[in-house]
Amino acid sequence: MTEPCYDVAHLGHVELLTDKFDESLAFFVNVYGLTESGREGDSVYLRAYDDYEFHTLKLTAADTTGVGHIGYRCASPEALARRVAVIEEMGCGIGWVEGDMGHGRAYQFTDPDGHLFELYYDTVKYVAPENEKPALKNIAQRYHGRGCAVRRIDHINLLASDIGAIREWMPKALGSRITEQILLDNGNYGACWFTVNNKSYDVAYSGDHTGSSGRFHHVTYAVDCREDVLRAADIFLENDVFIETGPHKHAIQGTFFLYVYEPAGNRVEIANAGARLIMQPDWETVTWTEDERKKGQAWGLQTIASFHTHGTPPVGE
Amino acid sequence: MTEPCYDVAHLGHVELLTDKFDESLAFFVNVYGLTESGREGDSVYLRAYDDYEFHTLKLTAADTTGVGHIGYRCASPEALARRVAVIEEMGCGIGWVEGDMGHGRAYQFTDPDGHLFELYYDTVKYVAPENEKPALKNIAQRYHGRGCAVRRIDHINLLASDIGAIREWMPKALGSRITEQILLDNGNYGACWFTVNNKSYDVAYSGDHTGSSGRFHHVTYAVDCREDVLRAADIFLENDVFIETGPHKHAIQGTFFLYVYEPAGNRVEIANAGARLIMQPDWETVTWTEDERKKGQAWGLQTIASFHTHGTPPVGE
Amino acid sequence: MTEPCYDVAHLGHVELLTDKFDESLAFFVNVYGLTESGREGDSVYLRAYDDYEFHTLKLTAADTTGVGHIGYRCASPEALARRVAVIEEMGCGIGWVEGDMGHGRAYQFTDPDGHLFELYYDTVKYVAPENEKPALKNIAQRYHGRGCAVRRIDHINLLASDIGAIREWMPKALGSRITEQILLDNGNYGACWFTVNNKSYDVAYSGDHTGSSGRFHHVTYAVDCREDVLRAADIFLENDVFIETGPHKHAIQGTFFLYVYEPAGNRVEIANAGARLIMQPDWETVTWTEDERKKGQAWGLQTIASFHTHGTPPVGE
Amino acid sequence: MTEPCYDVAHLGHVELLTDKFDESLAFFVNVYGLTESGREGDSVYLRAYDDYEFHTLKLTAADTTGVGHIGYRCASPEALARRVAVIEEMGCGIGWVEGDMGHGRAYQFTDPDGHLFELYYDTVKYVAPENEKPALKNIAQRYHGRGCAVRRIDHINLLASDIGAIREWMPKALGSRITEQILLDNGNYGACWFTVNNKSYDVAYSGDHTGSSGRFHHVTYAVDCREDVLRAADIFLENDVFIETGPHKHAIQGTFFLYVYEPAGNRVEIANAGARLIMQPDWETVTWTEDERKKGQAWGLQTIASFHTHGTPPVGE
Repeated sequence: MTEPCYDVAHLGHVELLTDKFDESLAFFVNVYGLTESGREGDSVYLRAYDDYEFHTLKLTAADTTGVGHIGYRCASPEALARRVAVIEEMGCGIGWVEGDMGHGRAYQFTDPDGHLFELYYDTVKYVAPENEKPALKNIAQRYHGRGCAVRRIDHINLLASDIGAIREWMPKALGSRITEQILLDNGNYGACWFTVNNKSYDVAYSGDHTGSSGRFHHVTYAVDCREDVLRAADIFLENDVFIETGPHKHAIQGTFFLYVYEPAGNRVEIANAGARLIMQPDWETVTWTEDERKKGQAWGLQTIASFHTHGTPPVGE
Repeated sequence: MTEPCYDVAHLGHVELLTDKFDESLAFFVNVYGLTESGREGDSVYLRAYDDYEFHTLKLTAADTTGVGHIGYRCASPEALARRVAVIEEMGCGIGWVEGDMGHGRAYQFTDPDGHLFELYYDTVKYVAPENEKPALKNIAQRYHGRGCAVRRIDHINLLASDIGAIREWMPKALGSRITEQILLDNGNYGACWFTVNNKSYDVAYSGDHTGSSGRFHHVTYAVDCREDVLRAADIFLENDVFIETGPHKHAIQGTFFLYVYEPAGNRVEIANAGARLIMQPDWETVTWTEDERKKGQAWGLQTIASFHTHGTPPVGE
Repeated sequence: MTEPCYDVAHLGHVELLTDKFDESLAFFVNVYGLTESGREGDSVYLRAYDDYEFHTLKLTAADTTGVGHIGYRCASPEALARRVAVIEEMGCGIGWVEGDMGHGRAYQFTDPDGHLFELYYDTVKYVAPENEKPALKNIAQRYHGRGCAVRRIDHINLLASDIGAIREWMPKALGSRITEQILLDNGNYGACWFTVNNKSYDVAYSGDHTGSSGRFHHVTYAVDCREDVLRAADIFLENDVFIETGPHKHAIQGTFFLYVYEPAGNRVEIANAGARLIMQPDWETVTWTEDERKKGQAWGLQTIASFHTHGTPPVGE
Repeated sequence: MTEPCYDVAHLGHVELLTDKFDESLAFFVNVYGLTESGREGDSVYLRAYDDYEFHTLKLTAADTTGVGHIGYRCASPEALARRVAVIEEMGCGIGWVEGDMGHGRAYQFTDPDGHLFELYYDTVKYVAPENEKPALKNIAQRYHGRGCAVRRIDHINLLASDIGAIREWMPKALGSRITEQILLDNGNYGACWFTVNNKSYDVAYSGDHTGSSGRFHHVTYAVDCREDVLRAADIFLENDVFIETGPHKHAIQGTFFLYVYEPAGNRVEIANAGARLIMQPDWETVTWTEDERKKGQAWGLQTIASFHTHGTPPVGE
């Protein structure tokens, strides 16, 4: 028996690319409810009101869409060193970078599908300016109530051509546990949910039916309750944001979800997991069959077709 | 810098004593919404619908009230061994017991105030009988909707005469982190909140103003949203359960709370923390002063006087 | 200008036919959360916890499904007399019946599609037996929390072959106002929503695409909030109740809905309208075009195909 | 038996006086979430997003606080004429005024405690400008989500020295029904709740213990669910708005309430009644005794002392 690995503490941030920078930024600030904490080069750094770090979303102007990189914070400098050693041993490492406005030096590497990751420990903790100080000092920033007013970054979902390869790689590279998975009738894995902590997942991978690689499916921020998700639906509706599907409850993981496209086409989710946590150290992976998936989501909503095809960047870019 | 400790995975169970066994049992099953999973001797084993272990509450007939013992599950056999070594070194260990219906052998020890704890790894995972199988296989038991239908055990609160001593002891014994605390004007600590995982607390200690030791303040189960807490208030009202205070939002930890007394007098809470988690590995303890506490709870409700005096067993028993 | 008519106070009760009486009854009591208040002949009388009358649902064993009759309560004996005079003048009256366990004499008549209605004033007000007395005396019965625990009857929906005819008839017969309607491209009306009071609708009619007449679409009870609807979805899921569509928000009327089939196949809804009321005495009917309806429900969910075809009794019976 | 009176359709608007005009206006627009629809003289006209009239709150700069006047809209011109005739007969009429930006000519009169009322029929219906048009055309204005984003005006509460006199007067003057009341041990009435429609109350009167007359207790706007009230509490907290009491559930009327003071000291409530309506045409008044009131609010919260003394203007002004 191997002991659980706790080297990686949590998902830290995501860099999203947009070819409609101003519209995307207006969406994330005014509609989704993030707050800008800094600007540098072609990027704006954004965070949810209870994210403790300087940023959790780096929005970068580009000539395409999709994910730039994904950062995870380690539990300690020693844990970071251990992970880097493992990743270098695995042969997927790239090397150290200096870090940006939001954190110190980071070690970059790629998953088998080509998505760029980084691990870091040194971070810049958000210090609320006077007008953003919360009334209660145990949250990071005041609850501003602007737009959907999401609370904190929750997870990302990436598309990959070979889920089986990711399923081998992720537990080795990050020490993640596989909490749930879809096993296709042909013996391949259709999707896989991973976590490094007590959340039921911080990254999910879904099969990219288009044969592309390195594509992005969605990023999700958490709100406190399902009513917040329903309220977000009205806010999206009133702001002409395209709602792809939801609100509804996922059969897998039980999350109450709502998917929209931000103006440049990147898929964004708002979700709530209720009181569900994976505190069980020896959690046994829940496996879903194709047959079980045909029942649709928890209350019967069929999974929308675009869920298996829409990713960013669009195929061919 | 020392690395965070992850040896202890989570709060496992609490043994509550009651001198009104039938009434207490009826309360926990029909009103609070736990499910019986076994009986042995003077005890009934109970669990919430998404608790993965055989039991999280052991209700034991006794000639008094209060807490019997508190069990925490370790992350691995090795982690259990490490903790036992530390505790023996600390001089507060008692020794191994065989365990009961819900888990394997456990190591018992006491906190500085005399509360009995135990650590274990081998556990009995709950297997739902046919009529309790959930429609979705990623939860432990079907959502039965009975009474308050709480989801999972969340935390306990213990009274102690010397919070400062507990504050030194708990991080050493369990590897807990101190997430929030009250520092009195006289330099003593008034209360302290601890966690071993990503929850913002799994045990809290409050000063016992009566000078007693080993007393119990409350046990809490989590529900998915604040509406569940409000609904619980109506259920308690209709079932003649004494509501002590709430629903309201705690300033400390931000939990939405509701406190009642079960028929024998033990305080029981229903609570929801929203999407709040402590994922930050280097969380800095939030300290509240007496002055800050005078503002009352989050939205101004003054802390009820009985909160500082009512514990079980009653003083003098 | 004619003054608004207030002769009819509210929808009183619906008689539903079932050819699976025991299963239907078990559904309405244990899953939907109604309470039995009496039995007579082949019928059981049921009510929601805050319905003030003896019953709002009369469930009758039959060799088919669908609606038996629909009762509306008038505002006064004089108002009842005025309505009867109008209806007799309209030529659709049948005559007086003695009434059943739940109310006094009633005047029966039919709508242009053949559905049987009755108007009454004398009623039997529910008096809670000792074990159902509420803690707060301003509600009719204790909040029992059983199953979906719906609060009160809200509205019904009937299928009809000629919505235009209903649209002329209903305001004349009951004094109803048309709050919203669907106007098809061919100049016919697709559906129509009516109210006699401040609720935004108490009966809706939808076009029956099968060419049948007198069929039933659904009956709806109201709950206090959308969280109650979401909770109901989990209860239906765990009790093997077929969920047809929802939860989602209707574009028309804004109601948060969830549709299921009770065991015999009659469609039943649980819904919440939020704080929305029609207090405006000169409300102007909102008209929706086919084009507008193509956008689906409020947040984009496409209307399910069975919504236009599934009615009870099944076509051909 | 007299038939119910439906001459008065609903509470239309309230004029509130403030001696801190700019702060009050900023509160109502940015924190409470009303929208300005016009300005004239010393007044700004405000409305909630689903109020159908031009305004429901007229905020007027003055050298004191309290209520200016209260407007009710009648069901028809004929109904208005009938009410005026009755009121003139009662001897409390003042006469016709031209009306302001929000409605046509109105008939003014006073209640026995000196509060100024007016009745009107001709009104200015709100027409949303392009940037406020809702995505769904059955609501008055887009759901903007700003601040507490209340939905519609709900009710007012007035202080009066002789509740018994009001209790006689209101049903005669407006045709209101008394839905609930408090009967003191000394035989006097302590408070009384009235309605002209299916809402359970649109105006309440409470005894003014200070012996003053014509004072204002609070105005209330409705939100869709209790979660909206809880969210409002956080918004008030973050904006330094004084929270007097709540959120909690009223024993009387069952409303989920939250009381705050706007910057000038006028009490303002946010509330939700769930699905509760009074559709019963022969509703029997619910009477509460002093003894029953000692139990506090629904879940035991004691009524705050300032609730019986704080009114506007302050005593002596």
